Parts: sequence; C-alpha cells; structure tokens
Amino acid sequence: MKIKQGDYVLLYLDKRRKYLVKVVPGKEFHTHKGILRLDDVEGKEYGDIVKTHLGVSFRILKPLLLDYVKKFKRGTQVIYPKDAALMIVMAGIGPGSRVVEAGTGTGVLTALLAHFVKPHGLVYSYDISKKNLENAKRNLKAVGLDRWVVLKLGDVTEEIEEKNVDAVFLDLPSPWLAVENSYRALRHGGIFVSFSPTINQVEKTVEALKSQDFIDYDAVEVILRRYKVERGSTRPETFMIGHTGYIVFARKP
Amino acid sequence: MKIKQGDYVLLYLDKRRKYLVKVVPGKEFHTHKGILRLDDVEGKEYGDIVKTHLGVSFRILKPLLLDYVKKFKRGTQVIYPKDAALMIVMAGIGPGSRVVEAGTGTGVLTALLAHFVKPHGLVYSYDISKKNLENAKRNLKAVGLDRWVVLKLGDVTEEIEEKNVDAVFLDLPSPWLAVENSYRALRHGGIFVSFSPTINQVEKTVEALKSQDFIDYDAVEVILRRYKVERGSTRPETFMIGHTGYIVFARKP
Amino acid sequence: MKIKQGDYVLLYLDKRRKYLVKVVPGKEFHTHKGILRLDDVEGKEYGDIVKTHLGVSFRILKPLLLDYVKKFKRGTQVIYPKDAALMIVMAGIGPGSRVVEAGTGTGVLTALLAHFVKPHGLVYSYDISKKNLENAKRNLKAVGLDRWVVLKLGDVTEEIEEKNVDAVFLDLPSPWLAVENSYRALRHGGIFVSFSPTINQVEKTVEALKSQDFIDYDAVEVILRRYKVERGSTRPETFMIGHTGYIVFARKP
Amino acid sequence: MKIKQGDYVLLYLDKRRKYLVKVVPGKEFHTHKGILRLDDVEGKEYGDIVKTHLGVSFRILKPLLLDYVKKFKRGTQVIYPKDAALMIVMAGIGPGSRVVEAGTGTGVLTALLAHFVKPHGLVYSYDISKKNLENAKRNLKAVGLDRWVVLKLGDVTEEIEEKNVDAVFLDLPSPWLAVENSYRALRHGGIFVSFSPTINQVEKTVEALKSQDFIDYDAVEVILRRYKVERGSTRPETFMIGHTGYIVFARKP
Repeated sequence: MKIKQGDYVLLYLDKRRKYLVKVVPGKEFHTHKGILRLDDVEGKEYGDIVKTHLGVSFRILKPLLLDYVKKFKRGTQVIYPKDAALMIVMAGIGPGSRVVEAGTGTGVLTALLAHFVKPHGLVYSYDISKKNLENAKRNLKAVGLDRWVVLKLGDVTEEIEEKNVDAVFLDLPSPWLAVENSYRALRHGGIFVSFSPTINQVEKTVEALKSQDFIDYDAVEVILRRYKVERGSTRPETFMIGHTGYIVFARKP
Repeated sequence: MKIKQGDYVLLYLDKRRKYLVKVVPGKEFHTHKGILRLDDVEGKEYGDIVKTHLGVSFRILKPLLLDYVKKFKRGTQVIYPKDAALMIVMAGIGPGSRVVEAGTGTGVLTALLAHFVKPHGLVYSYDISKKNLENAKRNLKAVGLDRWVVLKLGDVTEEIEEKNVDAVFLDLPSPWLAVENSYRALRHGGIFVSFSPTINQVEKTVEALKSQDFIDYDAVEVILRRYKVERGSTRPETFMIGHTGYIVFARKP
Repeated sequence: MKIKQGDYVLLYLDKRRKYLVKVVPGKEFHTHKGILRLDDVEGKEYGDIVKTHLGVSFRILKPLLLDYVKKFKRGTQVIYPKDAALMIVMAGIGPGSRVVEAGTGTGVLTALLAHFVKPHGLVYSYDISKKNLENAKRNLKAVGLDRWVVLKLGDVTEEIEEKNVDAVFLDLPSPWLAVENSYRALRHGGIFVSFSPTINQVEKTVEALKSQDFIDYDAVEVILRRYKVERGSTRPETFMIGHTGYIVFARKP
Repeated sequence: MKIKQGDYVLLYLDKRRKYLVKVVPGKEFHTHKGILRLDDVEGKEYGDIVKTHLGVSFRILKPLLLDYVKKFKRGTQVIYPKDAALMIVMAGIGPGSRVVEAGTGTGVLTALLAHFVKPHGLVYSYDISKKNLENAKRNLKAVGLDRWVVLKLGDVTEEIEEKNVDAVFLDLPSPWLAVENSYRALRHGGIFVSFSPTINQVEKTVEALKSQDFIDYDAVEVILRRYKVERGSTRPETFMIGHTGYIVFARKP
C-alpha cells in the first residue's frame, strides 16, 4: 500500500525523535538532522526509509492511534494512555458500547473511546466550551473517528440526555456534581468512571457515589515506571511522572 | 430483560463479597450470610434483589467481562487487568485487529483480546499444553468469545504460522526465543508486546529486539495503588500487590 | 565476649525466622525446628552455633537495636524503620540533641531517638496513657536507653514544658492541635516532624504550620520496595506494605 | 548568639530559594530579588530578617547538616538523604560506632556517618582518587566533622586495613569485589551496606554475599514521594525522582 498525498506518516529517527507529519506536495519538514522533502515520502511504502538533505535516514511508519493522540495535546492537561487504558478496560466497554463522556477537552479520551466502541457503538461527548468541541472535531476527523462521536455543547452537571448507556466517563473539575445525572444515564450494571488530579476530588466523588446508591466503588492510581534496559546495567529511569490523577470506578446496581 | 436458566449472574453483597453464579434450576448457592435459591433469581431483572434464607439481601448484577475473567484464575498466575489494559491500548489494536498470542494459559488475556478485536478481528492463541487449551476453550465459550479465537497447539519459539498480524502478545518464560518469529509474523508497523515477571527476562527480550531490527522499544511496569476513601480519613491501602511483571513493547519498522 | 545470663540473643535460622530471646538458666525455647536449651547458649560467643534437639543449627547473633525494637510491637501501630530513618535524618538531630516526642506509644521511635542523641542529648517523650508510659519504660530499660529519655504523662496539645529544643516529633491523631505548642518549644531553626496515616491529617497539619509562621515545610511519603534477588530471576516482592503514613517537616525561622 | 564573620548562614526566601552563604565582610550576595550585603547579616541573630536593595526580605537561618551537604554536590552523583537515612538506621550504627566507607566521593555520606558516630566513633573513608579526598576534606572541615573521619587513599577491593568495625558502607561500581574484604573487616554481627544504581549490581553483590557466608541479606529500594499540600487540592507532585539506587544489607554471623 503506497503512501499518497494527504496521508499522515510517522517519521522515526529514534525513541525520542519521531514526528507525525501530513504528506503535502512541495512541503518540507525541518529536523535537527536536516530537511526532509515530503515529495520523497509520497509513493513509498510504510517501513521504507527517507533521507534528509544531510543524508540522515528516517523510517516511514504508519502511525498508531496513540501517535496521533499525542499530537492532540495543546496546552491543556490530557489523560495519559496508562490511565485511559485502565479506565476503558475496567469500564467493561468494547465494540458496540454506548458511552457518555465529559469534558471532551482536546478529544484524547474521546478518540480512544471511539476507537474501542467501533463499529456499532457511539460516544456522546459533552463540553461546555465551543472552542474545545471545534478543536476536538478537527482532531477526531484527522484520525477518522468522528463518525462514532456525537459532540455536544452542554454541562453534564445539569443534564445528560442519554439513557441506558453502558458507561459514563468524567474528566471534570467537580465530578461529584454529575454523579446523580450519571446514575440516571447509566443502564443497570453500567459503570461510572471519573478521573481527578487531587485526592480531595476523589473524596467528594466517592461520597456522592455512596449517597447515590452506586455500589462496588474503587479509587485507584496507576503509576507507570519506565526502565532503561542495557545488558548489565538495567535500572528504572531517573526522572518519572510521579502523578497524573486518581481514577474512581463505581457500578450502578 | 428477564434472567433465565443458564444465565450467569453476579450476586453482590459488598465490594469484597461478589459471586459469579450460573442460574441452574433447583440449585442452591451457599454464602456466609445464608443460602440463596437460584430458582428465586430466575425471572428477576438485573438490578433486582434476592434474599438468603437468613434474610440478607444480594443484588443481582449482569456480570462484566472482568467479572468472568476473574473466575478463570485457577492456580496458575494470570495477567492482571492493570497490565492487560496497558498492553492492549499501547499495542494499538481494536475492532478488526488480527493478533497472535502465546501462551494461552487459562485464557484471561485471550478473552480480553477477543473482546476488543470483535466483530471482525481474530486472535490466534498458541499454547504447548493441550490441557490449557481445553480449559481456555471452556472459559472462552462461557463468555461467548470463542468464535473470535483460534486456539492452536504449538510453540511460537519454533513457528508462528500467521503473517501480517497487527500485534504479537507473549506471556512466556523465554519470550526472547520468540522475537525472531514475532518479527516475521508482524506487519510493518505492527507491535510486539511481552509480559515477564523478572527483570532478567526483560533484559534478554530487549536485547533480542535490538538485534532483530525492532524499533521504539519500551520497558515499563504498571503499579496500581488502591485507596481507602473515607471522609476525613483517606489513605492508600496498607497492603498492596507490589509487583506482577514488566511489559516490553516494540514496533516493527 | 562470652554470653552470660540475662543477655538477649538473636537466634537466627533464616531471614524470616529469627528470634530475640533472653538467656534464662533452665529455660527452653521452642521452634518449628525443635527445642533449644538456653543453657546451651550461655558461655558461647556471638557468631557461634547452637543446635535444637532435632539437630537443626541456629546462629547466635548479638541483636541490633532494630531487632529489639521489633519486639516492642504490641497491638498498636508502630513507626517503621523506613519512616523513622528519614524523620531522624531530616530533622537534623544527632548526638547531643534535645528532642520532644509525642506520643510515646510502645517506645519504638523513642528508642531510636534516644539511641541517636546519646551520650549528651535527651528525649522528652509525652503520652496521655499511663499504661503506654509504663510499657515504654520497660522496653527502654531492656535496650539500655532509659537514661536518655524523660517519660512524661501529659498532652502536648495542651502544653509542652521544654523550650529551645532541636526538634519536635509528633505521632498523634491530631498533630495540628500541637503545632502552636511545638513552635514555642522549638529553638530558632528547630525542626517540626509529624507522622500521620491519612492525607487529611497532612492537610490540616500543613495548614496549621502555615498559619503559625513555620517555613520550609514538606510533605512526603517513603515507599519501601523489597526485592527477591536470585541469579537470573530477580524481581520485586509480590506483596508489599503499600502505605504506612505521610511525614510532614517544617522549620521554625 | 550573634552571627559573626566566617559563619555560614542559610538565606531563606521560600522552599525553592534558600542559599547557603558564608559571612565575609564587604561581600555581596546577588539574588533574583536583589542584592544582599553580608555586612547586614553580621551581628544579627538566627531567625532575623535581612533585606535586599530591592526591599525583599530573606530569613537568616542556622543551616542544618543537610543544608551543607547539598552544597557538596559537584558533578558526581551523590547519595540522597532518603537512601542515606535508611542505610544508617538499618546498619545499627550510632554514637561511638566504628565504620568503614568507600568511596568517599564528595563526602556526603561521610559527613552524615561522622555526624552520627560522634563523639567517640570514627569513620574510615577510602577513595582511589586523591582529588576526591582533597575535596571531601575541605567539605568535612567546613561542617566541622573532619576529626571523626580518617580519609584514606586506597582501594577496598584490594584491602581494608581496619578490623572489628561495626559496619561497612559501599558506594562503588563493583561492590561485589569488596565483599570478602568487608567480611574480614566486620565484627561478628556487623552490617554490610551497599548502594548501587543498577539491578545487575545488586544481583552480583547478593551472590557474593551468599557465597561469603553473610546472612540476613535484604535488597530494597526507597522511593520518596513528595506532596503538594493545599487545602482542598492536595496531590502528589507531578514530577519525581523515580530512581536513585538500590540498597543491599547483610549481616556477618
């Protein structure tokens, strides 16, 4: 399958230097190792090599969803794959699931949810910012996932219009204010999932869940430790992300 | 949707006491809080309550895949959701993916993979033990995922028959011996994922990946910390699972 | 130096089976590996071997302070060496320091403090329970550290009589109530240290410190991870203590 | 006690901006908040305030040993307080202990050991670099701890001259090569402690300890997690030091 105009490619030099680039005719991509002409990429196969004007080789890779999603990051804090992964698997969703999400933000979690509910499921994603929704729309279109997402301007602490959904995912400053609406939106056995940076948010959310007849709640934190692996001198990385946020799960009985 | 004979239900008392039970006419389920007659469950709806002969109430819940999967555990060590979740999301698989897995074991990871590649994907799961494969077959049938899995008696360190697969998942004592075959089985851009309890296995696997032209490798560990959340006295749980295993990722260029 | 009557010895079989025993004439010590006659220990040297009636060898070791301190544990929660160590080093105390501590509890932290302020320093240890103080007194006498400790029946949230002390160590349910008195008791540049199991206690304590003109405060947690080290199969222990408590430090300007 | 010429003071603006400065007449200290004249510091008391030419207030604090020790850091990797603390407490040393250490490096651990073995103990600190020893000598003199340290030019993998010491502390690239000499240098019941960044060093050291008749060995890692404590929005710090090194303990029987 040859690469054609408009395709996105991942130009890979090494683990820390890989770039997601759109193949636009006549355009150049500037790296620390020289300039890549995107015309040289067109017509190549994934896995092939392209050289900068300084002769440095880059591999042309087919981007994964996570490669795209990292490009969504624009200023605001986004959910990390380590957290999104546990949230998705513990929520029990999969192909065909109907899911409510709020807030949309840049659409990182939205894209992952859409990816996993394909081809028959749907993600209803709420945000109170029109600008966020427009940005997310662009991002979702770029990764071809927009048709599994209904972007909605609205505040889930006031109303969630959907009923009988399989899961509700919240990434909001005050998730506890949306617990009651989440309960109403969920089907029996449906899963509530919330992500929050501070322990105080967790405390308030769990309290709201308890008073709302949710059961089986759990509050956890996912810590990812990376290793520097070298024969005879293997060790964890010196610097690490020590904290992103806590995840709260609960089940509607 | 009323519960009928042969259905599985999750009988829920509290967070630590929830039981996956098959509704068989005339059968009883004995708990510390008294006896439940499964005939009392039949005909009820999910979310309803059933009482033991001592008058203690259990909620009847529709089990999630993870509730089933916990029942797969039989003696041998199984992959935890925290690890499986990251492996699945980082591997970039989803609905439609073709995946090779080894070894099958009790089928916990197999079931999760099958769940996420539905409805058009397929999991080729190898094990060298006939007994494991038979047990896994039963487990996969029980959760209705058997038709997305091809169980294969065989040793992936000797041969992987599939080509152009999207990902290879290894949970083997010597994953490094299967690196070369994994490379051949993967499509360009496909992802290698391996899970191992010891750091020495990680070291050998990463070395094999390097000498096999894999790129973008990463070795990580997922640490899950649970919290005891009570208003005014929130704290991490005293006892925790300190280690399950390391995960190695790599990409075929 | 020969072992004599009344000495304490550590009888060591392996890492998990080591016993602190007082050498009493005519007494026997029963182990899973047979009976040891303490008369056989008397007159031996540290490092020698003694055998049970079943012929199993135990090493006779001179106990360290930490070996004694583990024996202090009686029901109530005690401070772990990992936490006590950081508290002591960060507090900047050492030989000659004058330290206030509350509550005494079984005297574990008291003993460690006394050990490190020897031979010219002093620990003033408050507890509101007469029973605790009596128990701690016995424990401190047993390890020969009682003369560096002044045990005081009293409530530090009401009064700390000492002035110009180098550090205050609190292990109390409501440490924030003792912040003001700690401030008065400390010398300029003196260190406040508090240990608490819940994050809410930390929040309240730090708030009290801020409003009391303390500076340079820090809230930390020490996580100790143990490894199972075997050539070619090294890994962290599966089960670990996930949480003991948080430590708060501050400095009086 | 008034501050006089030649004294060291800690000039404190906030948690992240505190500076260890020697009071030299006529000298100025330049900060981002303006210039401090050290003549203004002389004659003040600890706890007093001094102002920059821009009117910003700094507190004058009496430095703790750890404040000095942080200044020792010069290029080479040094032991963190979290690790040094556990090593010292677990080694059972205290006032009066005789300790062997290698390598000296900048003298951070040396200073802490000297501080805790005062006033009757002694630290024998080996290094193979004359330059290191000279640097350490200056550092130890600056903190007034030089008379409890014997700095020795030598390689402990070849010889340790001392006998019957209470503990041996190793921070060397190949600690396993010094295990035999450590055994000979230790008294019965004495403690071996080693600090190493990689897991492979740990594996080799533990193997050497096993074959050398050491007992009661333990390999651990100290992870320090800092918290950002604010009323209502408390959370762990986003960035953390994920790894410094592993600590190995063992006991000579």
